[in-house]
Amino acid sequence: MTSQTKIRTGKGEGEAVGIALLGFGTVGAEVFRLLGENADAFAHRIGGPAEIRGVAVQNKNKLRPGVPKDLLTDDAKALVMRDDIDLVVEVIGGIDYPRELLLAALNAGKSVVTANKALVAAHADELAEAADRAGVDLYFEAAVAAAIPVVGMLRRSLAGDQVQRISGIVNGTTNFILDAMETTGASYEDALAEATRLGYAEADPTADVEGHDAASKAAILASLGFYTRVTFDDVYCEGISSITADDIAAAKKAGYSIKLLAICERLRDEDGNESVNARVHPTLVPKDHPLASVNKSYNAIFVEAEAAGSLMFYGNGAGGNPTASAVLGDVVGAARNIVHGGRAPGENTYANLPIAPFGEVSTRYHIDMEVADRTGVLAAISALFAKHNVSLRTVRQEDGDDTARLIVVTHAATEAELEAIVSELSTLDEVKAVHSVIRLGGEAL
Amino acid sequence: MTSQTKIRTGKGEGEAVGIALLGFGTVGAEVFRLLGENADAFAHRIGGPAEIRGVAVQNKNKLRPGVPKDLLTDDAKALVMRDDIDLVVEVIGGIDYPRELLLAALNAGKSVVTANKALVAAHADELAEAADRAGVDLYFEAAVAAAIPVVGMLRRSLAGDQVQRISGIVNGTTNFILDAMETTGASYEDALAEATRLGYAEADPTADVEGHDAASKAAILASLGFYTRVTFDDVYCEGISSITADDIAAAKKAGYSIKLLAICERLRDEDGNESVNARVHPTLVPKDHPLASVNKSYNAIFVEAEAAGSLMFYGNGAGGNPTASAVLGDVVGAARNIVHGGRAPGENTYANLPIAPFGEVSTRYHIDMEVADRTGVLAAISALFAKHNVSLRTVRQEDGDDTARLIVVTHAATEAELEAIVSELSTLDEVKAVHSVIRLGGEAL
Repeated sequence: MTSQTKIRTGKGEGEAVGIALLGFGTVGAEVFRLLGENADAFAHRIGGPAEIRGVAVQNKNKLRPGVPKDLLTDDAKALVMRDDIDLVVEVIGGIDYPRELLLAALNAGKSVVTANKALVAAHADELAEAADRAGVDLYFEAAVAAAIPVVGMLRRSLAGDQVQRISGIVNGTTNFILDAMETTGASYEDALAEATRLGYAEADPTADVEGHDAASKAAILASLGFYTRVTFDDVYCEGISSITADDIAAAKKAGYSIKLLAICERLRDEDGNESVNARVHPTLVPKDHPLASVNKSYNAIFVEAEAAGSLMFYGNGAGGNPTASAVLGDVVGAARNIVHGGRAPGENTYANLPIAPFGEVSTRYHIDMEVADRTGVLAAISALFAKHNVSLRTVRQEDGDDTARLIVVTHAATEAELEAIVSELSTLDEVKAVHSVIRLGGEAL
Repeated sequence: MTSQTKIRTGKGEGEAVGIALLGFGTVGAEVFRLLGENADAFAHRIGGPAEIRGVAVQNKNKLRPGVPKDLLTDDAKALVMRDDIDLVVEVIGGIDYPRELLLAALNAGKSVVTANKALVAAHADELAEAADRAGVDLYFEAAVAAAIPVVGMLRRSLAGDQVQRISGIVNGTTNFILDAMETTGASYEDALAEATRLGYAEADPTADVEGHDAASKAAILASLGFYTRVTFDDVYCEGISSITADDIAAAKKAGYSIKLLAICERLRDEDGNESVNARVHPTLVPKDHPLASVNKSYNAIFVEAEAAGSLMFYGNGAGGNPTASAVLGDVVGAARNIVHGGRAPGENTYANLPIAPFGEVSTRYHIDMEVADRTGVLAAISALFAKHNVSLRTVRQEDGDDTARLIVVTHAATEAELEAIVSELSTLDEVKAVHSVIRLGGEAL
C-alpha cells in the first residue's frame, strides 16, 4: 500500500533522546535555548529527556554564550553519525550540504527534523525514501510558514478529507511590501527599501520578491495536499517586482488587494481525470476575503477541502522564535516516536497525479490598458475577447486627454487563451499599451 | 514520566482495520458515506483498508439508504466487543451511555475516535486512563470546532512551545446571533428566532446561548494547552441571553464587537507560581482584532504561545461535513497506528497546575450605567473606583433628559474587585442603574 514497511519499536519510557543540532543561527540558538529552559516540560511531553549532545557550527571557536564548548564541533558529518545521536535537527539552510548530511543521518537510522524549505522542495523524494528504508521520521513543519502548523494540518488533520485548493500568503517580505504600497501609496522601490531598512527584506531580496521562496513552499504544500510529488521546478513563478503603485491603486479602487499567493489546485477535466497545479503570482483578492486582510509580514494559508469547507490559518510566518516553535513541535513528535515506537505519517505520494501545465490553468484576469479615445474601440476589443471565447465580467473606462484607460475583468479563461489575447491586443491599432495583467483569486473561496 | 507505558506494535502493512460506527445521525451518515466513497484514498493513507464492520443505531429496522442491512445493530455494546473491531467511532452524543460504551471499548483494547465534547469535557481523565492502560489511542478532534484542527495543533504542533492564552469563538449559534444583532440592530430575541428559523439554533437553544457548549470546549482546550485536567465544572460560564441591542450598539460605537469567547489562560502570581483559568462570557473585542471579523456561524481560535506568538485558526465549527472531516482525520491517525504501531500523544496532564478561582482573574471592564445628571456625579463614581484601586481608562458621558448615561472602561482589575465595585455602585445615590458590565478581551493579543 504505502512504502512504509518497517515497524518501529521504541527505546522505552524514560530513555533519553540524543539530539544533534546542525546550525546555530537565529533559529538554532532559539531551539537550543528553549530546549534547555523548558527541559522538564520536554521530558514530560516526550516521555524521556531530550538532550542536545552536539552542535555543528562553521567556526567552533566563536564564542556562543550559554553553549558548553565541548558540545561544539565543525565536523557535522561525524556528529550526525555518532552512536549517541538519535535525532538530527537541521537549521543550516542551503541545499547540497544539508542534503548530504540528512541523507547520511537517515541512512544511519536517525530521525530528522528540518526547517529547510529549499531542500525539501527540491529533494523530498530522496529524503523520504531514505526515511522509509530506515523506518525513521522526517519532519519539516518549519519549512512552511514557521509556527503556522500547515504541514501537520495537511498531513494529519485533513488526512480524512480531499483537499481541493490551497491559497497561501507564505512570504512575509512580499506581503510587507505589498501592504506598505497599498497603505501608503509608495512605489515598489520605496516599499522594498523600507522593508530592507526594517529587516523584513534581505540585502539580496531576489528569492523573496521574485517568488522563489513562495514557490518552494507551494511545492511542499501541493505535495502534501494532493499526495503527489510536486517539486520546485514544477511551480510556475512570477514575483512582485513589476507591480506598480498604479496597479495597487487601480486594484484598491475596484475593491481588491494585490497579494502574492501560492496557489495549489486540484484540476478535473471533462472526463473526470484529475491533475494538480502549483503556482505563485501576484493575485487580486477581493477585500472581503479573509486573505485580503492579512497585513504586514503575516502569513496565512487558506485551504478548501471537500468535507471541511474553507479553513484559514494565520500567524507569524518567519522569525527565530516562531520557526523554533515549529522545529520544537517536530522534535517532540520525532522524539516521542523514538521513545514509544511508531512513525509519523511520512511523505505519501500514492495519488501520483499528473502536473497540469500552467497553460491549462483557468483563472480570471484583470487587464489594465491604454486605448485610443474614440468610438469603436470597445467594440474592437470586445470582439477580440469574443473570438477567443473569453467573456468579460466588468469593463471600466476612464477618459484621459488623447487616450483612455480601459480596465477589463474577464470570466474564467485558461492561461493559454489569455496569452493569445494579450499578444493580439498589443497588435490592435486601438490599444496603445497593455499596462498590466493580474490574475484574480479568492472569489470562489 | 508520562503514564504511557505500553509500547504498541502494529498489525502490519496491508492489514484491514475493523471499525464500529456508533450513531448514524448527520455526522455518522457522512462518515459512512465518505469512508466508502474514498475507500482507496483511505487505504493508501492508513496503510490498509478501513472497513466499517458494524453500525450501531437505536432502530435497526429504519431504512438507511446505502447501508447494508446486516451492518446495522441495536446492540452497541456487543458490536464494540466483537473481535473483528479494532477501532470504535462514536458520534451518538450524550454522556452516560457513550461513556459506558467507550470505556468498554478502550478496556477491550480498541482505539476510540469521538466527536463528543460533553463526554470529553466531563470524563477525559477516566477515558484517558483506560486508553493508557490498554496502550491504545483516544482521539477527539471533532469535539472542538469541527474541522478546525485545534486539538491536533495544541497536542502536536505546539508541543514544543508554552501556550499562554487561548481565546476562541467556539459556538456557531451564539456567533450567528451576536453577528446578526450587530449587523441588523435586531434584539436578542429576534436574532435567536432568525437563528432557529435558519437551523443555526436548536429548538431548545439553552446549551448554546447559555454558554454550556462553549464551556465544554473551553475545558478541553485548557486541558490540552496547559497539560492540566480542566473539566466542565471548572469553567466559569456566562451566556449571551442578557445582551441587549443597546449593549451591541454601545459597543459598536466604542469600536468593539461583542463576541462570546472561551478564554483559557495561564496566570502567574507575583512569586511566579502558575495557575490556569478557563471561562466563557460575552467579551468586547476591538474591531481591528482578527476575532472581531469572524462573522455568521464561523468559529475561530486565537492562540498565544511563548515562541510562536499569535496564531489564528478559522473555519466552519459545526455541521455534518466539517465534523465528519475531523472524525475521519482521526480515523486515519488511529488506524495508521493500529497498522504501523505506536500511539498518538495521549492526554498528558503532567503539569497539573491549580485552577485559579474566577475571582482572581484579571480583566478590563466596560460598565454602562444611568446616572443623575448633576455636578459631582463623576467625582463620586471616580472616588469609588479609586477606593478599590481600579483606575479608569476611558469615561464617556451622554446626556439624557433627567439622567445621563455614563460608560466607563476600566484598567485591569480582578473579578473580585469588580464585583465589589458593582455592588457598591448600585448603592450610590448618583447611580440610577447599572445597565451592563461586559468584559474586554483581545487587546493584549
